[in-house]
Amino acid sequence: MLLKNDLNSIKTFVKKGNVLTKEEELYCYAQDSMNTNEKSVLPDVVVFVETIEEVQNILKYANEHKIPVISRGAGTNMVGACTCPHGGIVLNFSKMNKILDFSPENMTMRVQPGVVLNDIKELAERENLFYPPDPSNFKVSTIGGSIAQSSGGAMSFKYGTTKDYVLSLTVVLADGSLLKLGAGTVKDAVGYHLNQLIIGSEGTLAIVVEAELKLIPKPEACRTIVGYFDSFEDAVNGVNGIIKERVFPATIDFMDNNSIRTVEEFYPCGLKTEKEALLIVDIDGFENSLDIQQKYVESALAHANAAYIGVSANDIWTARRASFAATARLAPDVVSDDIIVPRSELAKMVRGCKNICDRYGLQVCIVGHVGDGNIHPQIALNLENDSEFKNYVAAKSEIYELALSLGGTISSEHGVGEAKLSYIENIIDNEVLNCMKQLKKLFDPNNILNPGKIFKI
Amino acid sequence: MLLKNDLNSIKTFVKKGNVLTKEEELYCYAQDSMNTNEKSVLPDVVVFVETIEEVQNILKYANEHKIPVISRGAGTNMVGACTCPHGGIVLNFSKMNKILDFSPENMTMRVQPGVVLNDIKELAERENLFYPPDPSNFKVSTIGGSIAQSSGGAMSFKYGTTKDYVLSLTVVLADGSLLKLGAGTVKDAVGYHLNQLIIGSEGTLAIVVEAELKLIPKPEACRTIVGYFDSFEDAVNGVNGIIKERVFPATIDFMDNNSIRTVEEFYPCGLKTEKEALLIVDIDGFENSLDIQQKYVESALAHANAAYIGVSANDIWTARRASFAATARLAPDVVSDDIIVPRSELAKMVRGCKNICDRYGLQVCIVGHVGDGNIHPQIALNLENDSEFKNYVAAKSEIYELALSLGGTISSEHGVGEAKLSYIENIIDNEVLNCMKQLKKLFDPNNILNPGKIFKI
Repeated sequence: MLLKNDLNSIKTFVKKGNVLTKEEELYCYAQDSMNTNEKSVLPDVVVFVETIEEVQNILKYANEHKIPVISRGAGTNMVGACTCPHGGIVLNFSKMNKILDFSPENMTMRVQPGVVLNDIKELAERENLFYPPDPSNFKVSTIGGSIAQSSGGAMSFKYGTTKDYVLSLTVVLADGSLLKLGAGTVKDAVGYHLNQLIIGSEGTLAIVVEAELKLIPKPEACRTIVGYFDSFEDAVNGVNGIIKERVFPATIDFMDNNSIRTVEEFYPCGLKTEKEALLIVDIDGFENSLDIQQKYVESALAHANAAYIGVSANDIWTARRASFAATARLAPDVVSDDIIVPRSELAKMVRGCKNICDRYGLQVCIVGHVGDGNIHPQIALNLENDSEFKNYVAAKSEIYELALSLGGTISSEHGVGEAKLSYIENIIDNEVLNCMKQLKKLFDPNNILNPGKIFKI
Repeated sequence: MLLKNDLNSIKTFVKKGNVLTKEEELYCYAQDSMNTNEKSVLPDVVVFVETIEEVQNILKYANEHKIPVISRGAGTNMVGACTCPHGGIVLNFSKMNKILDFSPENMTMRVQPGVVLNDIKELAERENLFYPPDPSNFKVSTIGGSIAQSSGGAMSFKYGTTKDYVLSLTVVLADGSLLKLGAGTVKDAVGYHLNQLIIGSEGTLAIVVEAELKLIPKPEACRTIVGYFDSFEDAVNGVNGIIKERVFPATIDFMDNNSIRTVEEFYPCGLKTEKEALLIVDIDGFENSLDIQQKYVESALAHANAAYIGVSANDIWTARRASFAATARLAPDVVSDDIIVPRSELAKMVRGCKNICDRYGLQVCIVGHVGDGNIHPQIALNLENDSEFKNYVAAKSEIYELALSLGGTISSEHGVGEAKLSYIENIIDNEVLNCMKQLKKLFDPNNILNPGKIFKI
């Protein structure tokens, strides 16, 4: 609990009107997009920061007084990366949302952390440039959150994740000091890659206040091919066949039968509800290269016993993107997870995940990025129902164990946050975890930066 | 100086015949591909390691007895990253050169550090897969060295650098403990990206003993277009024009007039020696997309006043790759540097670099990767000639200052090593450097791992 003194001091650091302290206001910041049945803790105060100096002053004060500081963009992460289990100060970056510089010639963009991904994408595209990372919430989520959570998206398969598009980061350390990490040039081999260490550290090592991003030329055209399969194994074989033909699709996504049926039930769009798996393959490049790519993709899918192959208009992506909302209509709550395994083990993972959920009487719709071996099981349940919740927790553990036994891991693009903290000791070797903890101690000796996330101190 | 005791102990850790101690043998390991006039220090012993356990035992012993340990692959780096200024143990990885696993389905390869890049590339290509990083010495240089130096190459423009192709690293810490960093899956958002911290750390934080690499589909075809220009500004405008047309060339390299003339003198191949700049543009993708790409590239080059445009057979790359050897024939020594600036400043950088060298009476041939804003000035001189050497040192400082003033930096893909250590305090802010030093202390408290590199402790 903050003292009145602390609150008064914090108010002096920012503009009038940029501090929220009323319970009904704080309530909105007690949660992010993680779904849980645990009672959430309110922050003590929410501060809208507008300048780097404000962030520095707040951190300096918080560090001296050992007050937790939680950075927040749009709050769209699904692992409780910006909840406040120990209360403290929420730094709201939604007013630091300016694009500071855009150089089409250098193919770079310098942005504040609160900039929404879609704004970056749209501005880049005006100059035929492209910022590829596309977490499914990119129309509202911020670049600061993307950097904190090491976000990916459907396009990761061809274009990589957020970490591949960060040239430099300006960060504030726990003690309030300001560091620019990385030269901002397209390549940089001077000293340690500290910016890469910050990416994915979920606001626990430093707070990003500016980022310089790399852009690439925007492909001229894109085409979506769909393939329905009677078995998930066949679908994965289809993917392997595509690669063998040297096609490098921008995305290779999928929906399982439950997802297909659930989407079709709530948002009818003509999906083939009797099929086990739907592959969605986006090919891109120059318009005149699409026909040959399509030919190769179709031939690979046919060779893998696809039951139906066709070119899709945009609505297949509308359907794919609706799967979370559709699943949410099956029960009061839905929890989306984020599992990755080597692609060779993907069929086993999907089948195993289904079997586990069946065994516990849980409804699961599985979608994901087949190319990467990445699945998002979406489990619909009533979190308030104790027995259902117990079943969910048990199923989740088994799903995680299965992922590990198949050479995979339990977070590929969502992060760890509060949601997966209790599993991390089973995932990461003790020596490696110890190394991470020592880094945490070095960067944040008073443990004020997003405490209670990733691992226990 | 190692004690006889130490030597005897070290011999017990490895197979008979894997330890070199004779002066004439040690002599070969006193230098790498850095060119310098300073007297080099011999290592005390060279050890060919064959297993991870051997590396662990040696490090444990070295750490207890505070003996420097320098990892070495092919020794092709140009910054003295594997010299031995404090003597010590050279760990020679040339016998740990096995490809441990290759999964075309998962598009991954698990390799020992001594594997030569070309072997990785060739094996991948047999399955239509591609390992893109291509430092110019890729036919002899090793993956361990690539990871240590964060190597790039001509293809970085489209395909990124080594850091973009490392999924996991197995490393030995200074105390001999073994850590696997990263899950080995295509994406991984569980905890801090420690593997990214190790990449580019030049063997000063940990020693890589195994790496899991990401591969991508190999483009079906590639075509090389050349454009000659009367001014370097026009050449850079040509590059900007190419990007505006949404073409994403695999490489956009260049040679300046000195390089063109020098190569033509020693390896005549019909280069147009009167032109100021030669652009070499590799376009790749499906065969049937090359014509349209070529059309766009040619139109952009013509629009930028190219004096000559044509499609090249392979010999233009032979010429480009011969530039270092050709420059080396101008004087007893040649030093290749590695400067990067935002592409918008590249013409200024090239012209400034030439002017500085002219002013100091130094011969310089400039080649580089225009797409990235990266140039390699190759200065031919006699390092034994004191006044020439003094001029070289002064010119180098001015070149570095110019790069910094243009928003660039002094190493993009070669690293810092011993060669650029004395400049790093001007390049990196004190607070950032301090942060790197604290990391070094955390990982290697006794400073045994490649001491005297990157920065002064």
